[in-house]
Order: sequence, then structure tokens, then C-alpha cells
Amino acid sequence: MAEQITITFPDGNEKKYPKGITGREIAESISKGLAREALSITLDDDIMDLDRPINRDGTITINTWDSEDGKYTFWHSSAHVLAEAIQELYPNAKFAIGPPVENGFYYDIDFGDQAVGQDDLEEIENKMIELAREKNEFTRKPISKDDALDFYKDVGNEYKVELIENLEDGNITFYEQGNFTDLCRGPHIPDTGRIKAVKLTSLAGAYWRGDENNEQLTRIYGISFPKQKLLNQYIEQVEEAKKRDHKKLGKELGIYMIDQMVGQGLPVWLPNGTVLRRTLEAFLREEQKKRGYQEVITPHIGNLELYRTSGHFPYYRESQYNPIEMGEEGEGYLLKPMNCPHHHRIYSNELRSYRDLPLRLAEFGSVYRYEQSGELNGLSRVRGFTQDDAHIYCTHDQLKDEIINVIELTELVFGTFEMPVDIRLSYRDDNEDKYGGAEEFWDRAEREIKEVADEMDLDYKVARGEASFYGPKIDFIIRDAIGRKWQLGTIQVDYVMPERFDLTYVGSDNNKHRPVIIHRAPFGSMERFTSILIEHFAGDFPVWLAPKQVQIIPVSDDFNEYAYKCASKLKENDVRVEVDTRSEPMGGKIRDAETSKIPYMLIVGGDEKSDGTVSVRRHKEGDIGTFDFSKFLSNLTTEIDNKEVPEH
Amino acid sequence: MAEQITITFPDGNEKKYPKGITGREIAESISKGLAREALSITLDDDIMDLDRPINRDGTITINTWDSEDGKYTFWHSSAHVLAEAIQELYPNAKFAIGPPVENGFYYDIDFGDQAVGQDDLEEIENKMIELAREKNEFTRKPISKDDALDFYKDVGNEYKVELIENLEDGNITFYEQGNFTDLCRGPHIPDTGRIKAVKLTSLAGAYWRGDENNEQLTRIYGISFPKQKLLNQYIEQVEEAKKRDHKKLGKELGIYMIDQMVGQGLPVWLPNGTVLRRTLEAFLREEQKKRGYQEVITPHIGNLELYRTSGHFPYYRESQYNPIEMGEEGEGYLLKPMNCPHHHRIYSNELRSYRDLPLRLAEFGSVYRYEQSGELNGLSRVRGFTQDDAHIYCTHDQLKDEIINVIELTELVFGTFEMPVDIRLSYRDDNEDKYGGAEEFWDRAEREIKEVADEMDLDYKVARGEASFYGPKIDFIIRDAIGRKWQLGTIQVDYVMPERFDLTYVGSDNNKHRPVIIHRAPFGSMERFTSILIEHFAGDFPVWLAPKQVQIIPVSDDFNEYAYKCASKLKENDVRVEVDTRSEPMGGKIRDAETSKIPYMLIVGGDEKSDGTVSVRRHKEGDIGTFDFSKFLSNLTTEIDNKEVPEH
Repeated sequence: MAEQITITFPDGNEKKYPKGITGREIAESISKGLAREALSITLDDDIMDLDRPINRDGTITINTWDSEDGKYTFWHSSAHVLAEAIQELYPNAKFAIGPPVENGFYYDIDFGDQAVGQDDLEEIENKMIELAREKNEFTRKPISKDDALDFYKDVGNEYKVELIENLEDGNITFYEQGNFTDLCRGPHIPDTGRIKAVKLTSLAGAYWRGDENNEQLTRIYGISFPKQKLLNQYIEQVEEAKKRDHKKLGKELGIYMIDQMVGQGLPVWLPNGTVLRRTLEAFLREEQKKRGYQEVITPHIGNLELYRTSGHFPYYRESQYNPIEMGEEGEGYLLKPMNCPHHHRIYSNELRSYRDLPLRLAEFGSVYRYEQSGELNGLSRVRGFTQDDAHIYCTHDQLKDEIINVIELTELVFGTFEMPVDIRLSYRDDNEDKYGGAEEFWDRAEREIKEVADEMDLDYKVARGEASFYGPKIDFIIRDAIGRKWQLGTIQVDYVMPERFDLTYVGSDNNKHRPVIIHRAPFGSMERFTSILIEHFAGDFPVWLAPKQVQIIPVSDDFNEYAYKCASKLKENDVRVEVDTRSEPMGGKIRDAETSKIPYMLIVGGDEKSDGTVSVRRHKEGDIGTFDFSKFLSNLTTEIDNKEVPEH
Repeated sequence: MAEQITITFPDGNEKKYPKGITGREIAESISKGLAREALSITLDDDIMDLDRPINRDGTITINTWDSEDGKYTFWHSSAHVLAEAIQELYPNAKFAIGPPVENGFYYDIDFGDQAVGQDDLEEIENKMIELAREKNEFTRKPISKDDALDFYKDVGNEYKVELIENLEDGNITFYEQGNFTDLCRGPHIPDTGRIKAVKLTSLAGAYWRGDENNEQLTRIYGISFPKQKLLNQYIEQVEEAKKRDHKKLGKELGIYMIDQMVGQGLPVWLPNGTVLRRTLEAFLREEQKKRGYQEVITPHIGNLELYRTSGHFPYYRESQYNPIEMGEEGEGYLLKPMNCPHHHRIYSNELRSYRDLPLRLAEFGSVYRYEQSGELNGLSRVRGFTQDDAHIYCTHDQLKDEIINVIELTELVFGTFEMPVDIRLSYRDDNEDKYGGAEEFWDRAEREIKEVADEMDLDYKVARGEASFYGPKIDFIIRDAIGRKWQLGTIQVDYVMPERFDLTYVGSDNNKHRPVIIHRAPFGSMERFTSILIEHFAGDFPVWLAPKQVQIIPVSDDFNEYAYKCASKLKENDVRVEVDTRSEPMGGKIRDAETSKIPYMLIVGGDEKSDGTVSVRRHKEGDIGTFDFSKFLSNLTTEIDNKEVPEH
């Protein structure tokens, strides 16, 4: 009998197979359908070709389009098909590197003297589809370093030669499909026929190895799909995302500005944005107050000593603004990269007893990180941002209740915006030894987190190996109105900082103990969350969030007085209202209010004044009828108090 | 007939006198009483001895104890009497410098080998009084540089020798009283007899010329008065101030902490302080909203380019944190020393029309200044603070209305805390040529400010020469509950920054014009204002400001449920309430609530539960009776809504 290996499935089931079996054969042993959909397998942490023999025990995942690893394989292979198409159309092109990325793939290419532009992309796409239809198999070929170098020296590709020179002999493979051969570790999909739809999305310059002293190459970005329908959906989503782009809407709606003289990546909140942000802050502050949080305010810098203690300095320097150096005695300050160390010092400011715990310190704390300028993006990737931060100091016995408290808050927050949430429980990798804190605490915390998730009936996945060094995490991944996913609202258990900052409390046994810390921030950062909110709502904010809630438009100056009377009643009820008394035609005023996405317009003229009514227009809906003013007001304040989210 | 000079009096009246007349003679020409009280005169900007001949035209003020210049003279002379006393008691003492200061005077003295300590001060005080009773006249003696040097070389005083070496021959004077001679520019009071009461307040080390490489001298601080009663009042005020010290109360009440690991002079707001601060911010935000301000939020750093434009960099470097230098291309950022430049960039972000003005941008903006560590003091002198800042951009025609708007807000703010306000209109010195902005604007603004002050019936003084380079100012000087004065809430007109930042608006004439800017901050900084509030109220905040407003104390565990029911009703009404369920005796719980200065305590037991009542204790007053709970609640919310200030 052939030698057997043990394969473990994601559901924990184990099965024995003959050694040398392939992923495809295993998939077939489960279902024909799965085998048809399979793109690659993941064995433990390695992604592998579907047809590669498996010679060891391991946990297997059959990767289809629905998984990250499946898409990764699919797009990696698509990059090769892109290169093949270009090789056919531009025989002198030299290929540098072509990896899959978050949404598709790219290839960096040296076209020599040939000018390749946006207009040429369609022809390349067509050629890719033609090659895909040939259903050419991807074949893996181990090759010696010398042979690999000879191959690329022959075709005169100095880029691949340079890459190979840095590789170790014995680990080098080529992949072939059709007439194209590439230096590649793989893995790949079984054949090009899986690629049914391609879109080359853009074209950019890129330096070889990212170094501006090197040759400039042409980078072609693309995305591909196993079904034409998926491409159509993707294009639609891209169009929709463009319309919702927070940089465009952020400017149009007066939310924020970026000014080079103030500094790259340092958003300035304009009046409308400030109203939005303060409203979000007030909402969270109120919910936190109900849950026993206490707010604090800490400075925006800290002595280097503080960050030496936390370990943030001198590590992580590349992502920080440089220190402020004062005088010759080494006095220095860091713009704070996070709020935690300041809060730990507040904890240490008093002798704490078990009776004082849990201590929940919250701060809308501004932090600064020096992201590379190429990474900066509107409000979503910035150098200065404000976290809705909090740290909960508790005993191990209190951890479970506190996690429930935090999850419940986080779910309430995202529920308020009608954002569905996926939850990931990020645990240790049991095989690794890099984690801080005692094993017993980890075991208990991981067990309790799972108990909580089950008791709360959460829809969650466990991700082993995704915990941080500090402790296990719970990650919230929200889906926005057009289906995009954003990771927000991590809950992080921390066993390390209590040690570093020597945090203690006196227990009921009169001895000193270490508290455990929970770090949490439902929004993550006010900046990034606002960018997501703008795109989620396409700028049509729920009334409670809208910077301007009501615009009153008198049909002529004769009704300004009535308009102001209504406005003043609205203001008394904390409604954000303006009266448009400009000498513009009515239609123009309505159009301007629509452009400003003000939820309600009240048109007031003779009838309204004599009847004490208002003619109400809803943004994007138009006229919704005439209401007694007091009825409109009570409807409106109910809508605001309930934080109602309209259809979006 | 003798040559005549023209003397102008503060009320604008002019009078002619013979040249060579003295201040004392002029005072006598007004009233005997005034002459008796007179200490010195101020002629234009020069303070002069009462008996010095006046040989030119000028504006005269007769300085008495009630004026700053009068006190300055009095305390300067007292420093000489201190030195005289020490010369008698410690013949080998060498005198360095001895100026008047804000509250008294000091003298830096080299006692050689003799140890002089706190215990010796009383003897020195007695000697001073003895010398004062001798009514020795202060005599002014011009002296040549050589003679002055010889005098101090003879007595072996190297400090005075060094001082004289830096003086110009022809400008040197000695002053003598009794057996004491001092190098001094004067002026002095007529004779030592005016000094009726002396208190030497403290003793400290001080380096000669403030340089730690020099000899260390002994600095003796003192204060003196023309009446014993005034000294008694002063001592009482000092005692009272000590009890109210915001550093002591700030710690006891959990308002803030200073932590060396975070950084010197960088206050951290603790939970109670944060509630207080947020309450103050909400109050001002609300009042600003009513007055058409728009809130913005700007980053805590700015590109150096921004401060080169404003002129804050590289000037004022000594009072700033050093820049954050990034990379080699001169990219640099400054912790923002003020918010103005950021606001000016917001103004420039759009094309502004006269219809958009006035634009009122407000921010609770945190700024950072590197004060010397010796200057730091709790919350009142810090390195990081948050201004309740705003900038109003308006046309020259709007300036007057805007100033009214700001004064009205400022008076409302201080009125809310029952702090009486003195107002100073700080104008140009007409004889100086150092001011920015067109003369016509200055003329108009100064005239309009005065018109406003008259129309609003303000109690004000005009201070010529006190304007800044930018434009005229209005300063608010408040008096706290124990009579101390604090300058707060300056309103500053600015003609310079609109030029520097090239700010424009399109006028109704379709041409570009410069707006004018008003800078204003009623509180000044949240930190300093909080320190003043703590001391003003001695920590017994009005209920609307108190971090904890109500403490509910159940007489036993049986009444916890009723206590929580009351607490929950109070919370629904936004009252900050806690229930004290500790197993402590009743008396202890009441004492703790008193120590925490919680305004109301509700004692609840069987009677209260069955009657739906609460027994109410008011902080510092004790039992004020039993109330229906709903009556207590409505009284309380009225007290909070009206921001009532109790007797303090």
C-alpha cells in the first residue's frame, strides 16, 4: 500500500490520502463542482498549484474565486497572460516584475523605444482574451541558476538577470503558458481558460526596483475575472465609487481641505466637516458615558522617555515625524504616534485598587505618523489624525464583561450607519513563540473571546496567527453601501504594556497585581471614518449628521420675516438651518440646496405664512407636500433623535 | 516773568507753570491731600522724583499708591531701605541689583561667608521699619563715571563696578537715604517715612546676571505698604490664595496632572478636569454659534513655510519648540505656536466675496510654546495650551459691528462667572512710526473702538502706546473673588496679516480688497482660565460647571435601588451623578463628598423611598431640607440652565 498522508480540512475533519495526491484530486474527491471552481490550494501557509503533488501532512484549503488566496492566484496568472499578450504585440518588450495586488495585478515593462499609451490598452486586452481562450496550461519548471541566467541573457533581459542573480540555486522555477516563459515562484491557475474577462485599468511610470536612479519602466495595471458579469459589476462599482469619491465630495461639501503650506497629509477640517465630526464625537461620547467611560485630554507631544518606555522609540522611526530636539542634554519630544502611553501614565498617577477597576479612559486623541507622500490619500490616508481612542484597565476576571461591553458598543455604532459587519477573532499561532504575556492569560482570553462571540451570536471567523504580539484581537470589517470592505474598530487585548509601564492595582488580597488593558477605537480615526462615511452615503448624510439640515427659501422678500421666524424655532430645537434670502430665482436656490445635499428645503410664501405651514422638499426626492410647521418640526426632531438612515 | 511751561493733566486740561516747578508743587496747587499722597510723577513716559524740577512741556500724572507707577516707585525705594537695613546688620554684604517687581521688590545680595536664612528676615524687617521711621529723604546725585567707579572700588563691590562699566558717562546717578548710597536711576519716594509696613516674603538663590556660571547670590523678596492695614489685607489675601491654589486644588479635585515622563509644562487633563473643560467649551461654542461663528479644526503642526509667511519663524524661536526636520531638502514642521496662520489659509482656500464677510472662524486650538522651565506654574503657565481662538475676517465698514459683537460676547462670558471686568483700549503712540497698516485705518479703528466703548457704556481707560504693531487692541482685565487682577480676553485688530497672507475679497465694485482681521479669545487659554476659575471659586464651582454635581448616599443597602432610580432620572436630565454604595459609615460618605466639593448630596432612606423624596445637603451649607424628588430635579436643572453662581 502507498505511503499515506493526513490532510486536515478547514472544518477540522481529517482524511488520509496517498502521498503525491494533487489538490485537484482532493477537490474531486469532495465534489466535481469544487474541482471545476478550484484555482489553487493553500497547504498550511503555502499557496500551491492545483496539480502539484502533495507529499506531507497539512491543513488544506481549496482556493476558489471566493477566497483571497484564490483571487491572488488568478490575478498572478493574469499578469503572465498580460505579458504574453505584450510579447506577441511588442516583441522587443522586456519584462521586469508582474505581481498580483489588492485589486488585480500589474506588470512593469521596458518597451524600449516604443511608445505605448492608454489607447493601446484595448488591443492588449483583446489579445489577452484571445490567449485565454486557448486554454493554455501553466507549467511549473524547476531550473538551475546557470540555465536561468543563460535563458535571460540570450533574450537580453537585464531585469530578470538581476533578479536571478539574487536568488539561491535550487529554488528557482520558471512557469510556461502558451509561448510565454517567466521567472516565477508561482503558483498559478491550471490554465488560461479560467480568465473570461479582462480590464486594463491604467498605465503609469515606475522605476525599476522603485529607485528613481534606475530605468523608468511602464507599469500596466489590470484586473480580470472568471465571468464577464463580475467584470461588469466591477466597472459599475468603480463608476459608483468615482461619484462617491470623498476627495471630490469632500471639496464640494466643504468638509476638509489639504493645503501644501500647512503640510502634506495634514487635513484641515472646514466648517461643514467640523459640524460632521463634532456630531460623530458627541454621539460616541454619549454612548461611552452610558458605558462608564471617563474622558481625558492629553498633550500632542510626549517626552522621548515616554516612548522609550513604551518601545515606540527608537523603533518605528521611519513611520514617525522626527523628534523635536531641545538643548544639548538630550531633551527631546515626539509628536505622539499613539495615545496609549499618555493614558498609562494617567493610570499610574494614583494608587489603584481593585475597587477602581475597570478604569475606562477615553480620548479623541490626535496622533501623527509620517506616511510616505505617495501613500497619502485625502482623508483616508493622512499624516495627522484623531483616534476615538480608549483604554480599559481591568482585572483578568473583568476581561470578558469588558469585551462584551466594547463589542456591544462597536456593533451599535456601525448599526447606526447601517453598515453590515464581519468579525474576525485574531488569535495566536500556536506554533510560534513570539507573544508577550503568560500562556494561561492567552488561553483564557482566547477562550473567553470565543464564548462572548458565541453568546452574542456574532457572525465571526477565527484567524490563527493574526493576533498581535501584545494579545489577541477582535477585528471588525464593515461593508459599505457599494459592497467594499473596510477594516475598522479593532479591539485589542494587551498583556505587554502593563509590564512595560509597571501598572499595578491592589487586589482584595492586599497584594499588587497587573491589570490587563483593552485598546479600542470603533471609528478608528475621525478622518478615515469620515472618508468612509462620505463614500458610504455618497454625501447624502442622514439628517442627524448633515452639516446643514434645513434650507428655508422664501418665495420673495415679503416672506423673509416668516422664514426667519421658522428658522429661529428650528434653531431653538438645535436644528442647523439657514435662510436663503439671496436675490436669485427660486429654481436656482433649490438647485444650490440640492447641490449642497441639504436634506430638507422649506419653501415659504403667502399660503404658508397665512396657514402657518411649510412646503417641504426632500433632497433627491423633490416636493413631499405641505405640513403644519409644528408637524414638520416634530417629524424632523424625531428623525434626528432616532438617527434615521434614509434609503441610500 | 519766569519762563513758562505747559503741563497737560490726564483729563486733558492744560495749565501753565514756571519752568523748574516740581511735581510736589504742582500737586500742592491741586490739593494738600494729593501732595501728601503723592509718591512720584509721570511726565509723558518718564517716571520722576516728586521734587525734581520740571523744565519742559508734558502730560503729567501725579502718582499715588493707587497707581501702578506709584507702587513701582514705592517698592523701588523699599528695596533701598532693605539694603540699608542689611548694611547695618551685615556690614560686609555686597549689593548687586534691587528692582521693584509686580508685587513688591527684591534685592540680590552677596553675603560672603555669612549664612542668612528665613529666620533672619524678621530682624531685617524690624530694622527696615526703624529706618523708615527716621523719615530719611531720598536724594538724587548725578555723578561722573570715574567717581562712581572709585566709590564702589573703595567699598570693594565688584557687582556695581561691573554695572557702572556698562553705563555711559553723564547718565549716572546715585541715590542716598540715611547712611545708604546706591547706584540708581530712580525715581524714589520723597522720604522713607512713607513706608509704614514691610513683609519680607521669601529668600532664594539667584545667579549674578541670571547666568549659572556666575556667583550665586541671595535674593530677598519683600513687599511694603503705606499703611499697616494694607499689609494685613495683603497677608490675608496671600493666605486665602494659598487655600485656593489651583495646583493644590487641581490635584485634590482630579482636574489635571503634570507628569515628567509626559513632559514638563504639558498638563494632562484628568476625568474631572475634562468634564469642566468640555463644559466651558460647550458654553462658549453655543454662544459663538448664536453669533455666527463657524468652528474649524486644524492640525497641531504646520510647514515652516507657513510660519515664514506669518513671520513667526525664524523669529520668536527662543519661545518655541524646535522645528521637526524631515529629510535633507529643508522640509520642516513647527508645533504650532498660534492658530492664526492656519485660519488665514482656510480664508484663502476659496475666492471670497464681500457677501461672504464677516467670516468668523473659531477653533479650540492647541498651541505649544517653550516657556523656560523656571517660569512654568501648574495650569497657569504651561508649554502646551488650548486657546478658545477665533479670527473674524471683515471689511473696514463691518469692523465696528464686529467689535461690538465680540465685546458683548466677552462681557457675557465673564459676567457668567461673576468676574468684574476693567477694560483698556490700547492705542498707538502717535509719536512712534513702528506700526503696520495705513494711518487712515488706525485712525478710524481707534475712533470706532472709542465710540463702541462709549455707546456700550463701558468702564474703560485709554492706554496710548499699548497697541501692538499689528493694530489697536482692547484688553479685558478681570478681578477674581479675592481681588486679584488677571488680563484675559484680548481683542486685537490686525492690518498686517492680511498683507502677509495676501488675503482678499471681491467687493461690490468687483475689485479686490483687503479684509481686516480681528483676533479674539475670551478665556485666553483653557488651561490658564481653568486655573483662574479654580482659584476664583476656591474649587466650589457653580453647579453647571462642577465635574460631579450630585452624590446620592443611601443610608443602607436596602435603599440602593431607590438611589439608582433617582440617579437614572438625573442622568436622563444630563445631571452628573454618582451613587455611593461603599460600605462606609454615613458620616464618612458625607465627609468624602464635602472634600470632593460635590454641590449636592442626596441622603435616601426609608422615609425618602416611601415618600418619593430626597434629603438634600448643599456643599458647605449642610442639610437644606427634604424635597419631593421631582421638585429637587426641577430646581437643580433650573440652577444648571441659568448657570447660577452661588455666594463664593
